[in-house]
Amino acid sequence: MKFASYRSDGRPFYGAVTEAGMIALNDIWPQWSTLFEAVCADGLGALAKAAQDRAVTHTDFEYEMVMPDARRILCVGVNFPDRNAEYKDGSEQPKFMSLFPRFASGFTGHDQPLIRPPESPQLDYEGEVAVIIGKGGRRIAQADAYDHIAALTLCNEGTIRDWVRHAKFNVTQGKNWDRSGAMGPWLVPFTDAAQLDDARIVTRVNGEVRQDDVLSRMMHPIRREIEYISTFMTLQPGDIIVTGTPTGSGARLDPPQFLKPGDVVEVEVNGIGILRNSIEDETP
Amino acid sequence: MKFASYRSDGRPFYGAVTEAGMIALNDIWPQWSTLFEAVCADGLGALAKAAQDRAVTHTDFEYEMVMPDARRILCVGVNFPDRNAEYKDGSEQPKFMSLFPRFASGFTGHDQPLIRPPESPQLDYEGEVAVIIGKGGRRIAQADAYDHIAALTLCNEGTIRDWVRHAKFNVTQGKNWDRSGAMGPWLVPFTDAAQLDDARIVTRVNGEVRQDDVLSRMMHPIRREIEYISTFMTLQPGDIIVTGTPTGSGARLDPPQFLKPGDVVEVEVNGIGILRNSIEDETP
Repeated sequence: MKFASYRSDGRPFYGAVTEAGMIALNDIWPQWSTLFEAVCADGLGALAKAAQDRAVTHTDFEYEMVMPDARRILCVGVNFPDRNAEYKDGSEQPKFMSLFPRFASGFTGHDQPLIRPPESPQLDYEGEVAVIIGKGGRRIAQADAYDHIAALTLCNEGTIRDWVRHAKFNVTQGKNWDRSGAMGPWLVPFTDAAQLDDARIVTRVNGEVRQDDVLSRMMHPIRREIEYISTFMTLQPGDIIVTGTPTGSGARLDPPQFLKPGDVVEVEVNGIGILRNSIEDETP
Repeated sequence: MKFASYRSDGRPFYGAVTEAGMIALNDIWPQWSTLFEAVCADGLGALAKAAQDRAVTHTDFEYEMVMPDARRILCVGVNFPDRNAEYKDGSEQPKFMSLFPRFASGFTGHDQPLIRPPESPQLDYEGEVAVIIGKGGRRIAQADAYDHIAALTLCNEGTIRDWVRHAKFNVTQGKNWDRSGAMGPWLVPFTDAAQLDDARIVTRVNGEVRQDDVLSRMMHPIRREIEYISTFMTLQPGDIIVTGTPTGSGARLDPPQFLKPGDVVEVEVNGIGILRNSIEDETP
């Protein structure tokens, strides 16, 4: 069972995803007006039961960012060995991970265009797996970390590359352009460690493979991410951790190849699905 | 008229602040369950009218972070000339501002303790003015920027200094410890440019002045902050911009002087008030 946020006839819904279409669930569970609220209430199991044997309610719909009302999204930077080397600054592998928040407004949904703004031609992709926290906690041990994950999704952590380097510190302004990234298509409940431990992530641009790696090669594995982040902040249900991208973003190619209108980016992970987005220039 | 979020008998309220106590407003305006929701609905004027001639409802209360459900808080770093020089890295004044998000969970309210965690002795203060966005917008011109501010408040942008430098990029993990900073005591509606243009900010530790500067010396003035941030993300009502701290944080003293249990930090700005916090070690 998979769950998505979507719009139909201009109205927002969340529901269960089937091959034939969506089964809207917000009328069945009116106490949760969004998928985010259902996750915060540990409700994915209840949603799955509610969706069983129900008829499809929507075949004409648009995906939204998987939880458009998500409050806290933390991204892990430079988390694959080759990616650290890509920076060519001679630095050793960092002891601690790099972290930066992104606001939900920076993401659109599956099958929606990423928006290239007039201020920069350097829109770039980063394929990643995102984990959705289902059980909160502070100073969570690595051995227990997976128990705190409710679901998985995919992220194209789209970046305006030159704006990442605007400031003396921090990448904030290159990472938070409206609808410059995408998250979805859906949430897949996390029930088995192998969903992460055996995951392979592939990013394609117009069908050409640009990123291809396995999560087991992360310098800071997801268990460690949860341990480290929960050291300084109490994780809460509904928090999202975007776990890091492999080598091969467009900025690192020689010459760099940024995204342009008409391009199509796909992020694929076995067992989760494919997140696909086209590119459009912002319209005034 | 000033507005605050507070607790009494364990229940959360928002209300108008008077010298005699609080006038609870959430029962009068049940459609806004929090001060944040009132700000999002451009409701401060309505709240002010509602509070007129009402009796005080609470004299026994605890301040909360001024809007505990605030969704997006962006902080501006290194925004006073001497503060850039403090880094002693020979860099010129940066063309663009440094920005980093903080989650609301990193802040407590007025008169509540900042929490020093067992992982670090380097809890440090940073006194700042925070502006609350009342009218959203994208690519806001500097000339119009003040029209988008609904209210002002104070921030002690408390920082775990050694964790700021954990990562290759970004200050996230030093800036987001639970209740390591404070925001409040209250919102002061913004009605006159002079409230910002003539503001002087003073931070004291145990009565000793540590920071003392005027906002008019900012390298990136607040009008420019709003212009720049709204270039990449559509500002929304309820967004908070923490506008930057003057020179004189504890890490820059020789030798550095970090906060310890029993210390009291005050951030004062003429026309807004005093934000006062003690320091406590985290209790397991």
